[in-house]
Order: sequence, then C-alpha cells, then structure tokens
Amino acid sequence: MKSALECIPCFMHQALRAGRMATADEKLQKRVLDAAGAMVSGISLEMTPPQIGERLYREIREITGVQDPYRAVKDRDIAEALAFMPELRGLLEASEDRLVGAVRLAIAGNVIDHGVQRQYDMRSAVEAVMQQPFALCDFEAFLERLDRTPFVLYLGDNAGESVFDSLLIEALQKPVIYVVRDNPVINDVIYADAVASGIGEVAEKIISSGSGAPGTLLNRCSREFMELFGETSLVISKGQGNYEALSDCGEHIFFLLRAKCPVIAEHLGVAVDDIVLKQGT
Amino acid sequence: MKSALECIPCFMHQALRAGRMATADEKLQKRVLDAAGAMVSGISLEMTPPQIGERLYREIREITGVQDPYRAVKDRDIAEALAFMPELRGLLEASEDRLVGAVRLAIAGNVIDHGVQRQYDMRSAVEAVMQQPFALCDFEAFLERLDRTPFVLYLGDNAGESVFDSLLIEALQKPVIYVVRDNPVINDVIYADAVASGIGEVAEKIISSGSGAPGTLLNRCSREFMELFGETSLVISKGQGNYEALSDCGEHIFFLLRAKCPVIAEHLGVAVDDIVLKQGT
Repeated sequence: MKSALECIPCFMHQALRAGRMATADEKLQKRVLDAAGAMVSGISLEMTPPQIGERLYREIREITGVQDPYRAVKDRDIAEALAFMPELRGLLEASEDRLVGAVRLAIAGNVIDHGVQRQYDMRSAVEAVMQQPFALCDFEAFLERLDRTPFVLYLGDNAGESVFDSLLIEALQKPVIYVVRDNPVINDVIYADAVASGIGEVAEKIISSGSGAPGTLLNRCSREFMELFGETSLVISKGQGNYEALSDCGEHIFFLLRAKCPVIAEHLGVAVDDIVLKQGT
Repeated sequence: MKSALECIPCFMHQALRAGRMATADEKLQKRVLDAAGAMVSGISLEMTPPQIGERLYREIREITGVQDPYRAVKDRDIAEALAFMPELRGLLEASEDRLVGAVRLAIAGNVIDHGVQRQYDMRSAVEAVMQQPFALCDFEAFLERLDRTPFVLYLGDNAGESVFDSLLIEALQKPVIYVVRDNPVINDVIYADAVASGIGEVAEKIISSGSGAPGTLLNRCSREFMELFGETSLVISKGQGNYEALSDCGEHIFFLLRAKCPVIAEHLGVAVDDIVLKQGT
C-alpha cells in the first residue's frame, strides 16, 4: 500500500522516539530529527511506509551509531511475554477451537508495537482481543490453504509478539519456516529475538527475509526467501508493516493484525483497534 | 520559553492540518510538508515555539497562496461562541465572585484552539472549567495590579475565545486595550475577528501587536504596543502561544490558559488540562 500524508508526521514521532532510545544526547536526538525532516521532500507517497521506514531507521543508526536502539525494550517485551506463557496456554485450552484461539492470541500479541504512538497493557489487550469479533475473517480460505500447503511461511513482526507466534506455530500442525528482519529496525523481530522467544523449538527453521525494513519488501528479499515465498500455498503475515509491504502480493498471503493506525484501518476498511484475518489479493 | 524536541513532530502535524485547510490539492499539501521538513535543521531549540510557528505559517501562506487557511473555522467558532453568550452570561450571574467567574470563562474559551491536536466540545469544556480548581492561581497579585493600573493590556489568543474575553473585559471595570495578531496565523484572533466577536463594544480600543507569530514576540511588536506594554501595570496574556513568547518578560503579565500540551504543562509544573492564572517573572 501507498503512504498517506499522515505518515510523515508519524515518521517524525518515530524518529524522536528511536533517537531517544538510542541516545541521551539531545544534540544527537535533534540531528536525528533534522535528518528525518530533510528526508521528507525525497519521500514519494507512492512508496510504502516500510520503504520510508527503511531509510529513516538507517539514518538513525548512522547518526547515533546505535545498531539496535530498541534492544532493551525488546528484551523486556520478550521476557514479559514468556512470563505470560502459562496464562496464554490456559486461554488456548479454554478456546472452543484451538486453531481459532491460537490465531486470536497471535493477533493479540500484535499489540506489542513501538512503531505506533500508543500505550498498551499486555494482559488487558490480550483479554480484549480474545473476546473481540473479527472485523474481517477469511478463516475458511485460510483453513483450505493450510490443509494443502507443504509448509507455512510465517512472517514475524515484533519482538515479544514472537512469543505469541510460537503458540500459533504449534497449533498449525505443519512445518513452519519463521521469517525475521535482516537487521534491527524499530522493535521488529530479528534472528536472536526469535530464538529468545522460543521459536526455534516449534518452527522447522528461522530465516532472515533479507529485508531490513519494518516490513517484508520483496525487492529486498533474499533468493532463499523468494523461493520459499513461491513454493508455499500459505504465508502468514503478521502486523502492519508486513501488510503495508505485501497487501497486493498474492492470494496465498493471510494478514493477521490489529489495526493500530487510522491509515491502515482506512485501507482495510475497518476501524482502529479492529482485528483482522484477511486474505491478500 | 524554549522549544522542546516534541515541538518538531507537532509542527509537522500543524503543517498537515493547515495545508489541508488551505487547499484540497494533495500535491500542494505535500509541498507544505516538504517545506516544514526542510525547516527542521534550521530550527534551534533556543527558539520559542511561536518563533518557529511564525516561519512555518509564512511558508504555508506562500506555498498555498491562501492568507488565512482557518478563515471558515474562525467564522464558525465565533458564531458558535456568540450563540452561546446567553448561557455564558447565565453562568456569570451564578458565580459567587463575578470577576473570578469571568476569569474562569476567559480560560474556558481557551479550549478553542486549532494549533493543538485535540478535539473539544465547547459546552462540556466550559462546564468542566467552571468547576475545576486552579492548578496555579495568583489571584491576589492580579487583583492588586488591577486595582492600581490605569488600563489593562489584554493579549487575545484564538478567534471564538475572543467572545469569552468580552465578558472578562466587562468584569474588569477598567479601560482595556485588546491586542490581536498582525496577520492570520493558525486560528489566532486578528482585528476583524475581534470586531466580529464584539470586543469593539467593551474594549477602549483594539490594536495589532505587530507580531504575526502565534504568540506575542516582543522583538516583532510595534512601537505603539511596546509603549503600552511599558506603561501598564497589568497585562492579561491569553493562551499557550503568548505564554511561550512571554513567560519571562515581566511581573506585570498574568497568564490565563488551559495547559493543552505536555511541553507547556511541564514548563508550568502542572498537568495537561489544568487551568492556570499565573503571574510572570
């Protein structure tokens, strides 16, 4: 999907947040904002938000010299989600349909997102999502694809959310290849985060997409990823960034997300906070 | 007061809002954001927010060719406030102390502000402010100054809020010179807005400060204004923009405002939404 004008002030907020995560030096934080501001005229609204994000976070890494500004946040989120696992398993046992319950939990985990300007509480967010009706739900098509695919390509989104993903990976009862970002960007899941989240114990393997943008940009992806992307009948795509990058990249992609910003919600035709399981086009 | 890093994303939001008010042409709206982004590196945090705002809104006027993007909004706000006058007079009659009641109403009118990212409802905001305790209240010092001043210099803030100001001007029972912006900026009150708000019927006269920034920048003000500023024992300064410009410009200034953004609230040592009557330093 294209970017909206609203994305530009949002990227300035992101620059400030990430700059502050990376350094306590206000002069460097200001330089991050200067660089973000200078980027604006070079941004075309034909670009997807993750394409812009890729540039922005590269600038932030270069200016601050910090490769993973959200490192501490990610560690905390993963630890919090791991500690929450017994309760998550309890919620799953109580679900009428184990697969639907696991899909809901995987979406609930998508509240863990430091790219958007929102506060959240993990427990109450999870409880809300477990009760909430789906605004869009292509579950039949999802089941049909799951049934016939030799393996599932599972695109992770945020660190911490990845812990929730492990429960859906178990519930799928198919070989799963879990895909992470190639380098740190916002709080998105990278290889080490996936391992720390326990994904290695449930997935067949963990690979990098090759894209270091906050979304899976196909023109940045590795040959290995693209081959798997072509072979599978089912790609599970978590979160907004992957939706922004892949919304029109095939009917074998199923987007699981919570709409957390007005631009995404409008593109999906749903309200902010709605939950979605949507087949791609 | 100085600007904070938070002011920079906020200015990008303002650029988008004002650009959209000025034109329906998305290309021009993008050019406004481009110009705002390009300004960032030239912004020093030593500048006050109204100094930055002055530059930003000048760019917006130049790019869009629209001198007063908020014209329709201001007309609507003034009309809404005028229609509300009988109720406002009723609230004033019911006040224990007429002057305190009028001060509260003048602060209540300060909810009308399109520079901040907030929604408001005029009626419920007024009702809330009439009940709300002051977070800061230098009323004794205010009374003492009012008693001995030959006239009051009253710095208006927003169009529509100006209608509320007329009730305080009446209640002061002193000659009042009402001061407006020199040119349109956000929804700030200019000469024509003050006249439309009925200020001409209660104030001795209406003058321009000479400053076209969204705040009274003394180094931009006219000689006439500066002479009056030096002669009076009491300046009433409405709103955030005037506070940002004048917070350390003298003990004869009394700031009446509702804290509507975290940067202002922190500078005042109060919470967002708190109401304040504060003597300057």
